[in-house]
Amino acid sequence: MSTTDKELRVGMVGYAFMGAAHSQAWRTVNRVYDLPARARMALICGRDTAKVADAADRLGWDAYTTDWRDLINRDDIDVVDICTPGDSHAEIALAALAAGKHVLCEKPLANTVAEARAMTAAADAARTTGVRSMCGFNYRRVPAVTMMRQMVADGRLGVIRHVRAVYLQDWIVDPQFPLVWRLQKDRAGSGALGDIGAHIIDLTQFVTGQRISGVSAVTETFVKERPLPAGSSGLAATVDGGSSADGNGTGPVTVDDAAVFVARLDGGALATYEASRFATGRKNALRVEINGSLGTVVFDLERLNELEFYDATRPAVEQGFNRILVTEGEHPYMSAWWPPGHIIGYEHSFTHEMRDFIEAVATGVDPTPSFADALQVQLVLDAVARSAELGSSWAEVAPALTAAAV
Amino acid sequence: MSTTDKELRVGMVGYAFMGAAHSQAWRTVNRVYDLPARARMALICGRDTAKVADAADRLGWDAYTTDWRDLINRDDIDVVDICTPGDSHAEIALAALAAGKHVLCEKPLANTVAEARAMTAAADAARTTGVRSMCGFNYRRVPAVTMMRQMVADGRLGVIRHVRAVYLQDWIVDPQFPLVWRLQKDRAGSGALGDIGAHIIDLTQFVTGQRISGVSAVTETFVKERPLPAGSSGLAATVDGGSSADGNGTGPVTVDDAAVFVARLDGGALATYEASRFATGRKNALRVEINGSLGTVVFDLERLNELEFYDATRPAVEQGFNRILVTEGEHPYMSAWWPPGHIIGYEHSFTHEMRDFIEAVATGVDPTPSFADALQVQLVLDAVARSAELGSSWAEVAPALTAAAV
Amino acid sequence: MSTTDKELRVGMVGYAFMGAAHSQAWRTVNRVYDLPARARMALICGRDTAKVADAADRLGWDAYTTDWRDLINRDDIDVVDICTPGDSHAEIALAALAAGKHVLCEKPLANTVAEARAMTAAADAARTTGVRSMCGFNYRRVPAVTMMRQMVADGRLGVIRHVRAVYLQDWIVDPQFPLVWRLQKDRAGSGALGDIGAHIIDLTQFVTGQRISGVSAVTETFVKERPLPAGSSGLAATVDGGSSADGNGTGPVTVDDAAVFVARLDGGALATYEASRFATGRKNALRVEINGSLGTVVFDLERLNELEFYDATRPAVEQGFNRILVTEGEHPYMSAWWPPGHIIGYEHSFTHEMRDFIEAVATGVDPTPSFADALQVQLVLDAVARSAELGSSWAEVAPALTAAAV
Amino acid sequence: MSTTDKELRVGMVGYAFMGAAHSQAWRTVNRVYDLPARARMALICGRDTAKVADAADRLGWDAYTTDWRDLINRDDIDVVDICTPGDSHAEIALAALAAGKHVLCEKPLANTVAEARAMTAAADAARTTGVRSMCGFNYRRVPAVTMMRQMVADGRLGVIRHVRAVYLQDWIVDPQFPLVWRLQKDRAGSGALGDIGAHIIDLTQFVTGQRISGVSAVTETFVKERPLPAGSSGLAATVDGGSSADGNGTGPVTVDDAAVFVARLDGGALATYEASRFATGRKNALRVEINGSLGTVVFDLERLNELEFYDATRPAVEQGFNRILVTEGEHPYMSAWWPPGHIIGYEHSFTHEMRDFIEAVATGVDPTPSFADALQVQLVLDAVARSAELGSSWAEVAPALTAAAV
Repeated sequence: MSTTDKELRVGMVGYAFMGAAHSQAWRTVNRVYDLPARARMALICGRDTAKVADAADRLGWDAYTTDWRDLINRDDIDVVDICTPGDSHAEIALAALAAGKHVLCEKPLANTVAEARAMTAAADAARTTGVRSMCGFNYRRVPAVTMMRQMVADGRLGVIRHVRAVYLQDWIVDPQFPLVWRLQKDRAGSGALGDIGAHIIDLTQFVTGQRISGVSAVTETFVKERPLPAGSSGLAATVDGGSSADGNGTGPVTVDDAAVFVARLDGGALATYEASRFATGRKNALRVEINGSLGTVVFDLERLNELEFYDATRPAVEQGFNRILVTEGEHPYMSAWWPPGHIIGYEHSFTHEMRDFIEAVATGVDPTPSFADALQVQLVLDAVARSAELGSSWAEVAPALTAAAV
Repeated sequence: MSTTDKELRVGMVGYAFMGAAHSQAWRTVNRVYDLPARARMALICGRDTAKVADAADRLGWDAYTTDWRDLINRDDIDVVDICTPGDSHAEIALAALAAGKHVLCEKPLANTVAEARAMTAAADAARTTGVRSMCGFNYRRVPAVTMMRQMVADGRLGVIRHVRAVYLQDWIVDPQFPLVWRLQKDRAGSGALGDIGAHIIDLTQFVTGQRISGVSAVTETFVKERPLPAGSSGLAATVDGGSSADGNGTGPVTVDDAAVFVARLDGGALATYEASRFATGRKNALRVEINGSLGTVVFDLERLNELEFYDATRPAVEQGFNRILVTEGEHPYMSAWWPPGHIIGYEHSFTHEMRDFIEAVATGVDPTPSFADALQVQLVLDAVARSAELGSSWAEVAPALTAAAV
Repeated sequence: MSTTDKELRVGMVGYAFMGAAHSQAWRTVNRVYDLPARARMALICGRDTAKVADAADRLGWDAYTTDWRDLINRDDIDVVDICTPGDSHAEIALAALAAGKHVLCEKPLANTVAEARAMTAAADAARTTGVRSMCGFNYRRVPAVTMMRQMVADGRLGVIRHVRAVYLQDWIVDPQFPLVWRLQKDRAGSGALGDIGAHIIDLTQFVTGQRISGVSAVTETFVKERPLPAGSSGLAATVDGGSSADGNGTGPVTVDDAAVFVARLDGGALATYEASRFATGRKNALRVEINGSLGTVVFDLERLNELEFYDATRPAVEQGFNRILVTEGEHPYMSAWWPPGHIIGYEHSFTHEMRDFIEAVATGVDPTPSFADALQVQLVLDAVARSAELGSSWAEVAPALTAAAV
Repeated sequence: MSTTDKELRVGMVGYAFMGAAHSQAWRTVNRVYDLPARARMALICGRDTAKVADAADRLGWDAYTTDWRDLINRDDIDVVDICTPGDSHAEIALAALAAGKHVLCEKPLANTVAEARAMTAAADAARTTGVRSMCGFNYRRVPAVTMMRQMVADGRLGVIRHVRAVYLQDWIVDPQFPLVWRLQKDRAGSGALGDIGAHIIDLTQFVTGQRISGVSAVTETFVKERPLPAGSSGLAATVDGGSSADGNGTGPVTVDDAAVFVARLDGGALATYEASRFATGRKNALRVEINGSLGTVVFDLERLNELEFYDATRPAVEQGFNRILVTEGEHPYMSAWWPPGHIIGYEHSFTHEMRDFIEAVATGVDPTPSFADALQVQLVLDAVARSAELGSSWAEVAPALTAAAV
């Protein structure tokens, strides 16, 4: 970037699915957007020396380390990007903030509300010294989603009446799919609920500007015992995707396969949510529909370049669901990409996330979603889990600021 | 029909929306299907002489009466077709069965469980003397829906994991829409719940062959006061659709505008249901998706000639949602209609209903859904209402056969 | 109809696919629409006594005859409805007009331009004595199509630049499908071209208000020899649909399986047309897209309740293809049917056709499309055939009014 | 890549739309795929010093030059990537091949058949010394397109009967859009025909394995005079997209706005093609449908992660168009990207192109499409132009090997 010499030296912890996605974004962001600072892919961290060395070479990081504490303590790192499973988010993020590093932490923020509260408190404290933090709910930066929020904010939908959100996948329908870390409560915190349910909770709250105030939930684990993954005595269970079983016997699935709940939003809307890994045929089906008194918007992540909009203020005979192809230069984030109709993909949401993160850090403002925003999602996840445990009884979402109120 | 001289003389009570739909079906059914009896549109009944006379002439009924008791007591009537609002179903049906008439009763069967139980008991008793009864959940006879049931029964979907069903409309989004009978509890029993929620409850139970065992529900009345309809001092408020207000002041809406609930089915599936009249842009959006361990089916009433089917047993690279155009001669009910690709409409579901009703009556078997089936739907509606009243606490669906167990 | 005692006594010739569709329309039209005259299904005509007797009984005609001349000469017939194959249209229509009967003739108007010219001349002459005639291009009366025409007429699309129209079917892909009458030139005139190509020619000219001025065409007969149909020595070959072969040997296919052509419209638009019976998977896929300088409309007969409309005058970020559900009371023909979102089917286009025909005849105006309109379609078909024969050289569409110019 | 030290040093000529797309691909390809050589973004070339310097910095090239001859003659360049307008392709490619550089040339290969023949001859000669060449028809590497070809090759579609292909855009519908270089014959060769028509010609020939043997065409320039672009006296007119007019007056549009043609393929199929920049609402609508005797495939570039497949060999009641989400690891090129359902975008087609190019060059085989393949497309474009000039008379596609026959 000829406009700046400023460099943000990024250290990333983790190199699996999220690590690859973030790498693609860090690599691309300054090639596409004109920003006040340039990201440098300085250091990548993983526990296995051979694997992290290979990842550094393949993904294009200048160096690697096997100790995340080393990464955090180095003077030549400005940003810590946390891409590990949820059980290590809190420890790494707290240490990074304490070391004065800006932090980008993947979602969900943590595996427990207590961790999330501690992280939020640390982020609030660090902010006073100019240290920035952000949680990586990347779908906020899908252009169609950003546009939905703007439309709601502009009043195009009127009063919000209904939210219906599903995030459906099917990668564990086969009972022989092995017991990977995402199916273990101590690593993942929860199952479909925290992994994909967190996305639709955040997305719908972001778009509507309303918070979920209470829920009634049902969760289920359809397949309760699964084969242990190959090499599960070591670290192999940390990789995503189709690990194979190795005949080592089976172990208990300790997270939910699916979570469904009804909710009320604090602005008066009724909502339904469903997160499942047992929706056969649905690969990455995050779908959201929001009905307002003046209109409706519909989004589908598998067709993320499109947004359907029903405008009830149009003449009656011409009303309908308008399939907007969100690829115009005037659409959020899109002026930097290709001509209209040339679609973008999943990974671009991360590039947009890095764009906004870099801009915020470089210009000294707080990026969003903040850790506090992510804590609020955690509180909803907690309410869902409580309701499910208590036979679907109504569970209020706890206030985020209990600690602050002390 | 040259194959038979047998005639079923039908007397229909009601002549509004459902009366018109039933008339079209009675008029058409023997012109399309070769059946063991022929329906005769013998008598139509309504309270307003001028209106019912006009309806008889327009819809093609031989005669009319303003007294449903007269209709029931006539010797030249074989079938009583009840198309009135729910508050009169029980009285008319009980009298008709007592008079030995076969009864086709529109859904929901009744406004209360008590009424539905009484009707079911009467139907069970009448059956022993060869009197037939059926509740008009017409969507079971949309060919794609019938096909879904067959696919589940044939094991094409494997074990059912998820059901998601919505029935969304938007005809009362405008707060100035008047307080028609469907918005009054004493006439309609409930709002969106009984009117359209009943359809998705029945349809999903029919297709899956499973019963809803318990629910957790939220209901809402978004607009609590509405203008009184023009002429509401008289009978005009009984007409469907866009009645206009007349400046007579307002009255309270005493039914739900929307009902959402999570449920468990007795075969182990999780389910979500939503019925709303506030889903802007959704006109008649009954949509059902059923995920099984081997496949998924998706149905949308606004495209009722189509069925989406995901077959997880196909080779992985060719798996996808298959849009089946349900217009082949081999599809349920379709051999009588047009060549492939020539679509049918909403009204055909009634023609198919009459087809099966006539065939059952003429051949001396019980048509489905029976009053007992419809009572079960009523029990679910009751559980939903109870859960909503009790702050979304879990409500078990009461057993249908309490009385029988005595 | 209480508003009138006027009756139009219809005599219909033919009882196969079109006969059944027309019967459904005649039976329904006065039950749905309030019209100045009522159609009476007085007489049906077919050559086979047993079959026509059965058809009369099944379809609901008062009487039958085996001699179309008898039908035409009867005093108690007002309207002659011609549903036979194209080779008999001219003879019957000319005789009917000479006898002073109003005529509704199925499309294509005739098998040759010469016949169509003669019929048009006869219709023009008969008009002077109050005798009405109409050609049955029923798709003009699909509400979405009628609406398209209105939108073009209202200037919503601006200057028309492109028309692309296909009518795709696949019922003869199997080379063992037998040599039914629709595959024989002497009966059908042409193959896909006249049968389904005629529909898209008429529809696009109707909607745009422009005439095709010239074409360059290619036609093909992919399967040149087919099994003779069972009973082809008799009349069985006249029935539509899946007749089976009977081992009697094979015969030559004498019509086109597919016809494709580019065209210019007299208003300046470029167009492409394709009619095929070899488009595997396409059952009744009449699809039309019209691009204008201000907008675009798209129609698909397999989803005939929908119309897509792109309005280029909207704000850029909200432009898109608007899926209009053409089921509102304000949409053409729809106020008489069901509430919004309750779809209609293929057969309704005929009911709308009969509605407009009855209204025109009863009020003494000329219905459309006239025989002259249908002649113009015939002239386009002729130009297509000529171009295809002459190696795709450009063929001007002959003027319809050559005779009149004399 | 730890597996290799081999480096391919790329010099790219041009930095507008195609230059940016190629840069994204060169930057990404080795980060995603494990390949036998690694691309180095060594040198970028453009005529304007300030602009090319900025492009080098922004897009991430090591160095820049303003003289393409310099680029070609440098010893430290292995590959020349030509991203300029078509009028300079031949000169640069011929020089690069003469200098022993591997060449990747954007489509269309050239502006004239003569140039394309010369380039093909040069490529054939260079091949004998191990110099590779390829034309950048990137859409061949959209996974769904690659899959279509494989399905045809595997016989899944049977005998191909029909091809229908459109490439529709709307960026010059506004008559005030300025006269950019793409609207000038001397720069662009032709208009919609060569720019986007070339893509559908290549794609359909690639997928079917058949060549277009003859065509009958119509072309049109709807807006014949346009404002001169701002700064058109200089080089600004070379930039893509929405240049603004500057009040300098107008100039003639010398290329086609739209081209439509019917064609025959040498395997017996009939085809229709349409390329237009006047299809209002269509942004990048490359759509192809191929009907075979056993099945049909449909592709839409605006939903490039999907492929519709109709399999006529399935049981009749379950036949339909199967929407395959082409995001599984087993699908072409996809194993390197994200989990199923996480879609890719337009730019990925270039990354796949670079992947195959690098692999071919590094392993010493010829990449495809070759210059000879691209010449064949040029010959079709030429036949289309000839037919259009001669009043749509049939034009045979000239054989590619005339020169070779000498």
